[in-house]
Amino acid sequence: MTGMRKLPTIHATRPGDSSRFLRVEEVDLEFSNGEKRTFERLKGSGLGAVIIVPMRDEDTVLLVREYAVGVERYELGLPKGRLDRDETVEQGADRELKEEIGFGARDLHILTNLSVSPAYMTAMTHVVLARELYPQRLEGDEPEELEVVPWRLAELHRLLAEPEVTDGRSIAALFIAREYLAGRFEPRR
Amino acid sequence: MTGMRKLPTIHATRPGDSSRFLRVEEVDLEFSNGEKRTFERLKGSGLGAVIIVPMRDEDTVLLVREYAVGVERYELGLPKGRLDRDETVEQGADRELKEEIGFGARDLHILTNLSVSPAYMTAMTHVVLARELYPQRLEGDEPEELEVVPWRLAELHRLLAEPEVTDGRSIAALFIAREYLAGRFEPRR
Repeated sequence: MTGMRKLPTIHATRPGDSSRFLRVEEVDLEFSNGEKRTFERLKGSGLGAVIIVPMRDEDTVLLVREYAVGVERYELGLPKGRLDRDETVEQGADRELKEEIGFGARDLHILTNLSVSPAYMTAMTHVVLARELYPQRLEGDEPEELEVVPWRLAELHRLLAEPEVTDGRSIAALFIAREYLAGRFEPRR
Repeated sequence: MTGMRKLPTIHATRPGDSSRFLRVEEVDLEFSNGEKRTFERLKGSGLGAVIIVPMRDEDTVLLVREYAVGVERYELGLPKGRLDRDETVEQGADRELKEEIGFGARDLHILTNLSVSPAYMTAMTHVVLARELYPQRLEGDEPEELEVVPWRLAELHRLLAEPEVTDGRSIAALFIAREYLAGRFEPRR
């Protein structure tokens, strides 16, 4: 199942500073017992992000294989992206779907919120279940077309064994969607 | 189930720059189709981190409630932490357990690796299942004692509804451990 696509070439890397969307912040804290600490955290854009669980049918989710520069390889996971200004969570999820997998969704349902890393990142990601898909492609800022990989929800345990599958939020969102679709989990709102 | 502990006071926040453990890096990329992009990513310490699934008995995992400055509230999740230099994954997991929940483990088993955010972070987290616990506390750098919360693995769907539970890696690691303990998932190595 390992992708055959050639990895991008890295021409250069250099230190960046407080930049487009990664801004480091220091926070001076005093705990209720009087202990003081200075912690660092990463400020997000504040707009939040979406991760989408697109269901092709009742049993089959559509995954994408996308180059991830953090880990320098192709990662197999759920479509996701940052929300644009003046866009609802559902609109952002629908747009990302159209850009990344070439489908829109007539039924979009927010399941929960996930943090990227609660201890040192402010960013939150909405988990959106997308159903009743129909073909429609939107041009995004993706450097290349993404490979779409259908996967049966009943086979999530096999997905865990794939070396390309490491994204905690994708894995969490898939199990959350499976619990929801089995009627065992009700969203908070 | 919301924690009763008073939140720490934030005395000050200020921009940080390439710092102790959060360093922003720019990467110039060329994809196999010739498209060029400059992406940003966050460089980790390179030592990696551990997230531990500590089993008090066959059915019960021990969670911790810990203040998370990224989201500015207490988060309920699995014990975790960065590895120290010259420490194996198992040694780091055992140390973090002793510091955070006051237990050591006679049986430590690496289940998989999770990325924090593969698209823009280099950091990887080892998921370690810890069994055969015994009481032993180590002094760590925690500003306050962490509250330990037992939770039944059969009740993970109820955990998802808790507003204090948002950490993708914790949720993923819990479901991975449950699949492993049910005999449905075999670690890659």
